[in-house]
Amino acid sequence: MPRRTPPVAELVDRAREGESRAVARLISLVEDESPMLREVMAALSPYAGHAHIVGITGSPGVGKSTSTSALVTAYRGTGKRVAVLAVDPSSPFSGGALLGDRVRMQDHALDKGVYIRSMASRGHLGGLSWSTPQALRVLDAAGFDVVFVETVGVGQSEVEIAGMADTTIVLLAPGMGDGIQAAKAGILEVGDLYVVNKADRDGVQNVTRDLRNMLALAERAEGAWVPPILKTVASRNEGIDEVVTAIEDRLTWMRGNGVLDDRRRSRARDEIEAIAMTTLRARFAHLHGDARLDVLAAKVAEGNTDPYSAADELIAAL
Amino acid sequence: MPRRTPPVAELVDRAREGESRAVARLISLVEDESPMLREVMAALSPYAGHAHIVGITGSPGVGKSTSTSALVTAYRGTGKRVAVLAVDPSSPFSGGALLGDRVRMQDHALDKGVYIRSMASRGHLGGLSWSTPQALRVLDAAGFDVVFVETVGVGQSEVEIAGMADTTIVLLAPGMGDGIQAAKAGILEVGDLYVVNKADRDGVQNVTRDLRNMLALAERAEGAWVPPILKTVASRNEGIDEVVTAIEDRLTWMRGNGVLDDRRRSRARDEIEAIAMTTLRARFAHLHGDARLDVLAAKVAEGNTDPYSAADELIAAL
Repeated sequence: MPRRTPPVAELVDRAREGESRAVARLISLVEDESPMLREVMAALSPYAGHAHIVGITGSPGVGKSTSTSALVTAYRGTGKRVAVLAVDPSSPFSGGALLGDRVRMQDHALDKGVYIRSMASRGHLGGLSWSTPQALRVLDAAGFDVVFVETVGVGQSEVEIAGMADTTIVLLAPGMGDGIQAAKAGILEVGDLYVVNKADRDGVQNVTRDLRNMLALAERAEGAWVPPILKTVASRNEGIDEVVTAIEDRLTWMRGNGVLDDRRRSRARDEIEAIAMTTLRARFAHLHGDARLDVLAAKVAEGNTDPYSAADELIAAL
Repeated sequence: MPRRTPPVAELVDRAREGESRAVARLISLVEDESPMLREVMAALSPYAGHAHIVGITGSPGVGKSTSTSALVTAYRGTGKRVAVLAVDPSSPFSGGALLGDRVRMQDHALDKGVYIRSMASRGHLGGLSWSTPQALRVLDAAGFDVVFVETVGVGQSEVEIAGMADTTIVLLAPGMGDGIQAAKAGILEVGDLYVVNKADRDGVQNVTRDLRNMLALAERAEGAWVPPILKTVASRNEGIDEVVTAIEDRLTWMRGNGVLDDRRRSRARDEIEAIAMTTLRARFAHLHGDARLDVLAAKVAEGNTDPYSAADELIAAL
């Protein structure tokens, strides 16, 4: 039985009052690419731009969800409202993630100040979906003070998450060959904080030293943020308060020098562009209700024109 | 000292006569996103649409380059002209690949019927670049009968390569946990041929059986191509002729039922769309010489409008 969707204004009000079901409904509208999204985004826009978006990335097994959970608890201790968006860049489906959400929510089930949600990666372009920024916009406007975006660091995903976050935490752990992985995946360009988790294990000194050496080699402009290296044992809550302090230091630093505003404008720019491109792509596909693109494609395939001339024709027909 | 670029018509003629340097120069124009590309593509279009584009993908270590090299030799034995485009989706740089090209070319250095080239993946969207289809267009128009596109199967790359190829070969090898990998990465949806390489090793029966079981579960329309499973030891040239036969069977099948034409039109469609989108993106960035997108981004960041309304304004300003 399809659920009735309440009016957008009502959903937005309830989400801002901390009602998890209203937040969930709004994010589902994003996931489903609902035609109501325009109205939702218009209703949310006056409230957006206040959350600190914190990306958390790292290889499988470094302890991302344990660390995130510990950070959520620590932030709740300071009275802040916290949301977690766990993005799985390897799966086009979100179904399987829902059970995980429920398990993860158990610690915070009665706490209206916490919201946890998994999202699959969408879109045929691979990597993190263009719906992720919109889900972040929902959580931001819903009044969460801190929004963690957690994703497995594979391929391009950590670069993409860094583009969406104000602050990016790169998690590592001893004994996983992370030093080599770090250099390879280019995570040294995206981390604002480096956290070596499982710091009670052998090899923590090696990881920390490798990381320090590699960060020392990075070129950094005068006055640029210098990423701190922290150690945690997230499963025992060790070092978590220090991570919270570092996140807050970073926020203060960004606020003081305009970096936060720059990041937000840059994200808005990417979002507008993505929506405009998606809109235009849809228009190409259904141009004047005929199959103009198909006709052009057939001409190119038969060698009767080239793709550049065909693209010119397509744009001219808009 | 910058090299003089000969006139496009001359380059195209020389490339069609099998001159490797002319082919290389044309592909460099693609890689450099040269302003001459429009002219190049226009000059090439009458000759395009004849090559059989064969994708080769598989996890690291399954023997992709050995297999490709054996296939090149086998095809040369039948008198066909063969090109190899090796795409590295993990690297934004192509510099390191050039030495590899020279090593790989040694076996075929005096053979005008063979061309081998590595390309880095470009573009901020991740995955295979939009320049790959254009490089394939160059090789096609240069008169190669078969063009192999080789890429490491990681993340989305095998799905993307399948979109660019007429025929996709998925390579596997025993003892690499490929059965599980296969299901996970969705390669069962992209393979037209499955080749279990290193078939002299333990575990070849397991891989073949797992693969057969999984392929048996796939839903297939009436009359659809049924992917064969082949075994090779590429390093000793065993089973390679059978792979060539299977590739040619697939080509005959595609020619007979219109699938080949469909694929080519679909590829042309993607190419036109990608070029049109890139053109429009550039126009957004420099709209009327002002910073319209920046102004809109600031308004969205400050909550004065939402990204959908901003996208509408951007499109209206085109």
